[in-house]
Amino acid sequence: MKLHESPSPNARRVHIFMAEKHIECERVSVDIRGGENISKPFLSKNPGGRVPVLELDDGGYLSESIAICRYFEGIEPEPNLFGAGALESAQIEMWQRRVELSFMAEVAGAFRNLTGFFKDRETPVKQWGQVCAEEAPKRLEMFDQQLANTTYLAGERFSVADITLVVALDFAKQVKVVELPQLPHISRWYSQVNERPSMTAT
Amino acid sequence: MKLHESPSPNARRVHIFMAEKHIECERVSVDIRGGENISKPFLSKNPGGRVPVLELDDGGYLSESIAICRYFEGIEPEPNLFGAGALESAQIEMWQRRVELSFMAEVAGAFRNLTGFFKDRETPVKQWGQVCAEEAPKRLEMFDQQLANTTYLAGERFSVADITLVVALDFAKQVKVVELPQLPHISRWYSQVNERPSMTAT
Repeated sequence: MKLHESPSPNARRVHIFMAEKHIECERVSVDIRGGENISKPFLSKNPGGRVPVLELDDGGYLSESIAICRYFEGIEPEPNLFGAGALESAQIEMWQRRVELSFMAEVAGAFRNLTGFFKDRETPVKQWGQVCAEEAPKRLEMFDQQLANTTYLAGERFSVADITLVVALDFAKQVKVVELPQLPHISRWYSQVNERPSMTAT
Repeated sequence: MKLHESPSPNARRVHIFMAEKHIECERVSVDIRGGENISKPFLSKNPGGRVPVLELDDGGYLSESIAICRYFEGIEPEPNLFGAGALESAQIEMWQRRVELSFMAEVAGAFRNLTGFFKDRETPVKQWGQVCAEEAPKRLEMFDQQLANTTYLAGERFSVADITLVVALDFAKQVKVVELPQLPHISRWYSQVNERPSMTAT
């Protein structure tokens, strides 16, 4: 297997996931700033033009970081990061999606539209970036309330939902387009999660 | 089980999924226009304030339509709609996410920002709605290319990825904020998928 990637929150999600499962594979760097991801050879790997992309040993490709993680879960089931049984699998899916769609997407929307980072290939709208930047912090309250009652975001198991939240929070801190509130239960969880060796995986 | 819902593309995804699996349950109507979904009693069911929400027999709640579908997949595995084995599960996840994040999200962004449908509770940005409306049709080419080679979106199995695409396309037609191109392979697939009895589930 080869992981085609460039430094990004989505690549980091995959790196942490792989580190948790002790999976290693060859890495191929993709030059996003130079537009390599929207070049013809790359589009044959992922017509969506996004990274990371996992190249399989049979020559097939998988994109979408969560789909790549789900593949790794299938080939290396332990430690379980997507849940076991109908209920826990659904709860982890729910929390993963809440983080991704309600918070990570707002942070990304603020970043892309306020900085114009990809303005050579998309139309940034400042006013929309501002709406995203104002919304994102409010969305964290739901996670803080949940973490008042559970060790990890989706319950007592560290899961892919925690990986998405830690990556989204660190990205928000890094790009400084969103003002993050200090929330007590998220702070407790954040310290605890950051003790995992996987958090520094690159 | 009870499904708390209001008419929406996400409710329809769950309806089709349930019909495919011959699952039935009590329905509870939620008045979105009247703001019932952001009332205190509802927020105790889903702090995210969204529908549908599945109330379980033990009093627990699941939200996020795909998480609800995954729960149904767990309790009623046949017909399989999320894939079997590491590779197919990942491929279905990939296509489901491509439809949802690259197309359905753009259609929703165009609808909400151009019409101001939820302007009592969010800030619509017309210019962003226009960007979404221009982007959405372009994203369909990837699905058309795939459907030139496969019966269903993620391969030879009808899956949750097909459900998301048919629902997103029908919603785009209904709200008329996006100009949809006629693409030959999507047209073939659309006719074929619409022969399934589940497509008219309400």
